[in-house]
Amino acid sequence: MIFRERTDVGKAKEMFLAQIKGMEKTELLPATSSISRVLSSSILAPRNVPHYRRSAMDGFAVRSVDLLGASPTNPVMLQISDDVMEGTCAPVNTGDYVPDEADAVLMMEDTISIGDMVEIRAQVHPGKNVGEIGEDVRKNEIIFNKSHLLRPCDIAVLASLGINDVKVYAKPVVAIIPTGNDLLPLPGEGIPAPGKTLDINSLMIAKYVEKWGGIARYCDIVPENKQLIEDAICANLDTDMIVVSGGTSVGDKDYVPEVVEKLGKKLVHGVGLSPGKPTALGVADDVPILCMPGYPAAGLVALFAFGKPALRKAGNIPDVPETKVKARMSGKIMSREGYLSYARVILEGNIAHPLMTAGAGILSSIAKSDGFVIIPENVEGCEEGSEVEVVLIE
Amino acid sequence: MIFRERTDVGKAKEMFLAQIKGMEKTELLPATSSISRVLSSSILAPRNVPHYRRSAMDGFAVRSVDLLGASPTNPVMLQISDDVMEGTCAPVNTGDYVPDEADAVLMMEDTISIGDMVEIRAQVHPGKNVGEIGEDVRKNEIIFNKSHLLRPCDIAVLASLGINDVKVYAKPVVAIIPTGNDLLPLPGEGIPAPGKTLDINSLMIAKYVEKWGGIARYCDIVPENKQLIEDAICANLDTDMIVVSGGTSVGDKDYVPEVVEKLGKKLVHGVGLSPGKPTALGVADDVPILCMPGYPAAGLVALFAFGKPALRKAGNIPDVPETKVKARMSGKIMSREGYLSYARVILEGNIAHPLMTAGAGILSSIAKSDGFVIIPENVEGCEEGSEVEVVLIE
Repeated sequence: MIFRERTDVGKAKEMFLAQIKGMEKTELLPATSSISRVLSSSILAPRNVPHYRRSAMDGFAVRSVDLLGASPTNPVMLQISDDVMEGTCAPVNTGDYVPDEADAVLMMEDTISIGDMVEIRAQVHPGKNVGEIGEDVRKNEIIFNKSHLLRPCDIAVLASLGINDVKVYAKPVVAIIPTGNDLLPLPGEGIPAPGKTLDINSLMIAKYVEKWGGIARYCDIVPENKQLIEDAICANLDTDMIVVSGGTSVGDKDYVPEVVEKLGKKLVHGVGLSPGKPTALGVADDVPILCMPGYPAAGLVALFAFGKPALRKAGNIPDVPETKVKARMSGKIMSREGYLSYARVILEGNIAHPLMTAGAGILSSIAKSDGFVIIPENVEGCEEGSEVEVVLIE
Repeated sequence: MIFRERTDVGKAKEMFLAQIKGMEKTELLPATSSISRVLSSSILAPRNVPHYRRSAMDGFAVRSVDLLGASPTNPVMLQISDDVMEGTCAPVNTGDYVPDEADAVLMMEDTISIGDMVEIRAQVHPGKNVGEIGEDVRKNEIIFNKSHLLRPCDIAVLASLGINDVKVYAKPVVAIIPTGNDLLPLPGEGIPAPGKTLDINSLMIAKYVEKWGGIARYCDIVPENKQLIEDAICANLDTDMIVVSGGTSVGDKDYVPEVVEKLGKKLVHGVGLSPGKPTALGVADDVPILCMPGYPAAGLVALFAFGKPALRKAGNIPDVPETKVKARMSGKIMSREGYLSYARVILEGNIAHPLMTAGAGILSSIAKSDGFVIIPENVEGCEEGSEVEVVLIE
């Protein structure tokens, strides 16, 4: 396949993302069901934490004034009591309410209890081991900013503040349109006839969309027919993103980018990505459209390079860095200059073995590889023995 | 709190993990519902892929023998036909069945079509652009090994092989037992009375357990009473792991490690972890028991340091490396020698700001921090301006 155009991946991504407006739709969810969701507004603390003066230690609540001058040679004796007043102290556990009259807590370990008396051999600062009201969280303080991605520990923080519901952005809906005359829908019955292929890309795309925080809309397989492709895209312009799988190479039936241009704007057709060169990017009615190659391995790389950042931008979902491991190459990787190359590797401890099957259509190469070594455009391959970063395939 | 014992975190983890047997129970799941699950047996390919000779290009299927000697000065003309025989060629698209009589596919770009004839100016190797049967996946080849963690792309590979169900390990069940006289169950009504605390730890632990691939079993709050704690642990020895929250410090009512020792074996009480020192680890009836501090921030660190690897081992779930980013410290971090210290930081681009609230009970420090800088035992803090790796809080 020869493309006149070959846009740099970084540039193509920038053009594509520039077309994507972030989600405005929000929804109210129980906080306990909001993990991995994105706050659509800041959350203020509805109350002080602690909302009472709290002991930070197991020990005795005291009036510091009673202990002025206490020392090993001049210990002070206080009587154990439920109330704190001149000459008495009250036992408290960590987290307990500190009686109003007390202004410090002595650690259990710094005291000697003798019957109902406590011997104290050191003076104590006012405020010592007492958590003041609002010390942790102050009422009306911003606890979480807008656009914060909620983690399990955050849910616990919300619960402690009595916040039961949160407003988050709706999940972006992604329509997945498979194209091809020879595609059969899953699960298929028996072995497909020669020349026929199961549409596994829709499933793969949908499962990644869900993993990345979107909602997948499966669409029927569309034959290689301009009008039908147009109809399918138009029927899904109510979504936040469309992924068309197949129909992007320069064969005579590869109509998809043409249709995108007709309906809106084709931004890019042909990118410096290997595998994944025939990728096209466009937009229609403000809906970003990713046209990815039908070859599973090439499609996967295009999905990672363009689909993931686009989906995250559409959903206002903060980017999480890739999971990477350092490894040493057991063999050489070849790559073409001018292409950002995703070389598949198998990890064995700290050794990365290059996967020899080069073909973009080679299905097993996906199953067998643990990650990608991503080689920049201006570098030609990577030598045996060199140290690389492997981006794990999630 | 003074502990006589202070076991090194690495050593403590090793002792704890040594007690954990991997899951043996398996379940059969639809492949499409098996993402993030772990295969309990290898999967063999039930058929060849491709299962027919497949064109790797858009072009013409030919007999290479017909093109012997073809060159720009001596082009060969073939007639376009549905069948391939001497002097004819058949148009094929990528993925199409290659007629049995053909042994090569010429790329469209290397041919010139003139009416129903094709002019060819080069000879071609037998096998060129033809994917042979089983080239991608050979029947009975191992596609995925036992213990493989299934990814969305793997599900697509399984679908392409007609594999609809997979056998995976059952998820480990984790019982979560909150202890404390002053705990109130969530969601609570209004502001808790002074001295009372909402049990947010159970929720936090449960949500991490689910995130890491386990099933959380919530248990009732248990008062600080030896017999009741014993009863609660005994009632959950049918699980794969027990997490007890609270009741591990040396205060007079901190019975949990004592009960663990009575029921089975207390491995460790007191670890070189900051925050998280009062952590205890044990085992009873082959069920690993993690006793974590009730302070949320300390509990969280103990959960990350011990709970996560233990859960993964219990479920045979492969370890995934932490997500880390490099950053430069905007200020100094203090840490104590002899403790593996989890210092909370806020990320702002590539700058990590230390979070000044040191207290293990300080709830807001969890909400506000993006990650941990983990400082080894033999290092004392970390200087302003130094480059650090921040482990993101998931």
